Amino acid sequence: MRSSLTSCLQEQPLVECLQLELPQPSLNDNTGDLDRLGRAIKHRGFAPLQFNPLRVKEFAQQIRRENFKVTAVLGFNECHWELIDVLPGLSKHRNLGFAVDLGTSQVAFYLVDLKEREILAQTSIANPQVVYGEDILTRILFARQKENLQTLQDLLIEAFNQTMQNMLAERNLSASNVYSMAIAGNTTMSHFLLGLDPTNICKEPYIPAANRFPFYHAKDLKLAVHPEALVYVFPNVGSYFGGDLIAGILNSGLHRSEEVSIFVDVGTNAEVVLGNRDWLIACAGAAGPALEGGVVERGMMAAPGAIDRVRIDPATLEPSYRVLGKQKPVGICGSGLIDLMAEMFAAGILTIQGKINTQLNSPHIIDTPDGPAYVVAFARETSDGKDLYVSEIDVGIFLKSKAAMYTILTVIINKVGLSFSDLKHFFVAGTFGNYIDPAMAIRIGMIPDLPVETYQGLGNTAGYGAAMLLLDRSLLQDIDRVCNQVTYIELNVNMELMNEFRGALFLPHTDPRLFPSVQIPEGGLAMGN
Amino acid sequence: MRSSLTSCLQEQPLVECLQLELPQPSLNDNTGDLDRLGRAIKHRGFAPLQFNPLRVKEFAQQIRRENFKVTAVLGFNECHWELIDVLPGLSKHRNLGFAVDLGTSQVAFYLVDLKEREILAQTSIANPQVVYGEDILTRILFARQKENLQTLQDLLIEAFNQTMQNMLAERNLSASNVYSMAIAGNTTMSHFLLGLDPTNICKEPYIPAANRFPFYHAKDLKLAVHPEALVYVFPNVGSYFGGDLIAGILNSGLHRSEEVSIFVDVGTNAEVVLGNRDWLIACAGAAGPALEGGVVERGMMAAPGAIDRVRIDPATLEPSYRVLGKQKPVGICGSGLIDLMAEMFAAGILTIQGKINTQLNSPHIIDTPDGPAYVVAFARETSDGKDLYVSEIDVGIFLKSKAAMYTILTVIINKVGLSFSDLKHFFVAGTFGNYIDPAMAIRIGMIPDLPVETYQGLGNTAGYGAAMLLLDRSLLQDIDRVCNQVTYIELNVNMELMNEFRGALFLPHTDPRLFPSVQIPEGGLAMGN
Repeated sequence: MRSSLTSCLQEQPLVECLQLELPQPSLNDNTGDLDRLGRAIKHRGFAPLQFNPLRVKEFAQQIRRENFKVTAVLGFNECHWELIDVLPGLSKHRNLGFAVDLGTSQVAFYLVDLKEREILAQTSIANPQVVYGEDILTRILFARQKENLQTLQDLLIEAFNQTMQNMLAERNLSASNVYSMAIAGNTTMSHFLLGLDPTNICKEPYIPAANRFPFYHAKDLKLAVHPEALVYVFPNVGSYFGGDLIAGILNSGLHRSEEVSIFVDVGTNAEVVLGNRDWLIACAGAAGPALEGGVVERGMMAAPGAIDRVRIDPATLEPSYRVLGKQKPVGICGSGLIDLMAEMFAAGILTIQGKINTQLNSPHIIDTPDGPAYVVAFARETSDGKDLYVSEIDVGIFLKSKAAMYTILTVIINKVGLSFSDLKHFFVAGTFGNYIDPAMAIRIGMIPDLPVETYQGLGNTAGYGAAMLLLDRSLLQDIDRVCNQVTYIELNVNMELMNEFRGALFLPHTDPRLFPSVQIPEGGLAMGN
Repeated sequence: MRSSLTSCLQEQPLVECLQLELPQPSLNDNTGDLDRLGRAIKHRGFAPLQFNPLRVKEFAQQIRRENFKVTAVLGFNECHWELIDVLPGLSKHRNLGFAVDLGTSQVAFYLVDLKEREILAQTSIANPQVVYGEDILTRILFARQKENLQTLQDLLIEAFNQTMQNMLAERNLSASNVYSMAIAGNTTMSHFLLGLDPTNICKEPYIPAANRFPFYHAKDLKLAVHPEALVYVFPNVGSYFGGDLIAGILNSGLHRSEEVSIFVDVGTNAEVVLGNRDWLIACAGAAGPALEGGVVERGMMAAPGAIDRVRIDPATLEPSYRVLGKQKPVGICGSGLIDLMAEMFAAGILTIQGKINTQLNSPHIIDTPDGPAYVVAFARETSDGKDLYVSEIDVGIFLKSKAAMYTILTVIINKVGLSFSDLKHFFVAGTFGNYIDPAMAIRIGMIPDLPVETYQGLGNTAGYGAAMLLLDRSLLQDIDRVCNQVTYIELNVNMELMNEFRGALFLPHTDPRLFPSVQIPEGGLAMGN
């Protein structure tokens, strides 16, 4: 994170505070008060400058009251500068902003100091709309009624305001010094935030009400920061390619490099962007939930109580694990599952077909109503006092997800006639990207067999990308370019795709030449029971 | 007037209505609804385009509701286009605007059809602020209290709304089709309209709160036309050079010609602009009131009952006159006074010193408490049953005004090292300019002795200039240029000025070489009693 932000040290923020000592009026200079301010601002290179007509009166008064010594707060609105406020005197004023990753489940907030170029605080809350539907589709259906759409918007705004207020209060900072916000969400979330009708997003031909949004002002959305604060909502490329991905690309730098890289965001869907500074191709597929810890019986998000690391002694078949937070294990999260599958496979517990080898002699291999299973933690170790195990059915579900992921990656790389070895970087977004152990993921054939240093976890790329924009307004041009460059491809279910998928259902793959570094363990080829 | 407006036939208006049949959405074109509209607008050359964030939702809905057939109303806001409205379907919509000359005493309204390029109606009302002071200074002092400033603004807005409403209702037109307004007023009136503090306008160093104003929207000022209508208020050059003059220059075309011309607006002050496309110099002086019919005992504005034309038979000294409206004379207006002075002088009734020759034998030459006088209409002819005469005191007052006018003209022409014969055009603004007989004004030495065809009355140049802007947005650049070019010179009372003024107090002047066409009448050199 720190490195991402410091990389743009020479860049200029979205909002700037200019301390201006204006020349006193005289008979030789009959420039009007406000024009005097405008002239000084333009001389500093901020042009064209646009005055908000509603504040002309107030600003002119402020200039006189402060005897021509004022601080101008200027916001960059793409084709012109806006005078957000005229503050008294030449003392230092804070220049704050909020970057927000507006996810379907979670909303992450970053309080940014635009002048000191640092993130002062960050926090994450559950998306309050969850009560009206866990998934996007349910919420879109709920929003069909106009007042419900309003309800969803109100919920978000309220949660935004409360969270921002808390973050500011904890640091004794004032909302009136927050002059900018950058919000990156998927297409539907952005529609909800702006109160736009999302109906057509999920109806063929899947057209959003708007892909690009104008700059809003905080007051337009009832956001409780400076009323004239610029609010930038990242544009979408389409219904299935949202502003969160645009912000992610920005954060990865993929779009600026000569070399080809790939960017993967595993959420509800796995979203993939491949390209370089000249071209970008993207697709998405339902690879996600199991990889993130969902669906699988004892799967869970990376949160306290989640097992996130697993090792299995191949000699004794005894597991060792790490739990997030200081507590007994509750479940197992995405990176834990990947570790577990990889270690079970390496220890010969899992066959290449994903079957559990019940002929092995270990108290950890048990029989359950869901068939054979491997116990990671016995009842005495877990927080709910029940065995924490993974059954063959769980393994099957998981393998479908990992196969879907590998299939998507294969399809997109084939589409442009490249091979995985052409990739300079393989960026993995999300908490998932930070926790995952690439060697393990390679071992199960979820991601291609590349040198592990190719893999780079980026964390919350949407939130970081939004924060970067606050610190570097030139990225607006990048966003524009990225939006125009992205070619989104639909993954039609065809024979080629099905063949790819079937091969990828195995551990690591039916074609071992694709994973030369993975050693097929002894007994790995044995059929399960 | 008609000629002024038709001269810009190829020009493009400030607001345009585009009928757009947008391509239907498909899987091959995932452009968002609003982006689809934006794209079509940009393809027609209207870029950069800015969406009002508050109307994004509504516009997106309108596009769907109208099945992608809509009419976009676009307003030109200098550095970008604004989407004022999205109207249903492709049927023809009116594109109306109001041009307003916002004077201290009178406010003139012009209802303009921007598409048909014609003025549909015009009307004039008294400035409702008159009840708080006839003159600017009184009103500025009144406005010192904040609530009074608000009162003055409210009065104006209310009068605007009522007048516009009446004009529209008479023609069965809707206020919602009025998408633009252009308002030209002097610096103080513009401040009042916008609620800006005018205090410093009349206090050294005479700095207005603002010389240039951003585009307002009708709703910002509570103007009862389309709420998003663009409202342009002409900029000032300084406290004593207002937007009315900028509009006047625009209307005259002075600033576009290679040849040097002069523009004179006689109001409370005489305001003078000299120049061509490369340079402009301006000044103002208190020459006005008497020339407009004020101050002089029986003087009045050009209105029903005013004598506006006078001829005197040099043989019999009998006057003949014309009265405005079908009624008995009430007073004598500016052009009538000029005629009267010129004819009295030609008939030998006035000496070159402005004295009445009481040795002449005529019942029209009488003695009054104000000294000798000439009766234009006897009691039996007038509406108030009193003799309508002009005394030597009146003549003295009038001569001071005409001398001031000639002095200002002399000073400004000398300032740039030119002589009057270098002038291509001598534009005279205002009703005054339409009524005045140049030959008569030359005879009394009020204006230079140029061929009469040099003089051109333009009527309400501020109102026409404002109307021209509605029809030709490229004039915004002209305005910018004019504002930057104008050099305003203060007329300091110095010896040179006083000498000029003293010479100009005579009829036509102490230096007859300046008026070769004027014949000094027999007895003109005789001293009065």
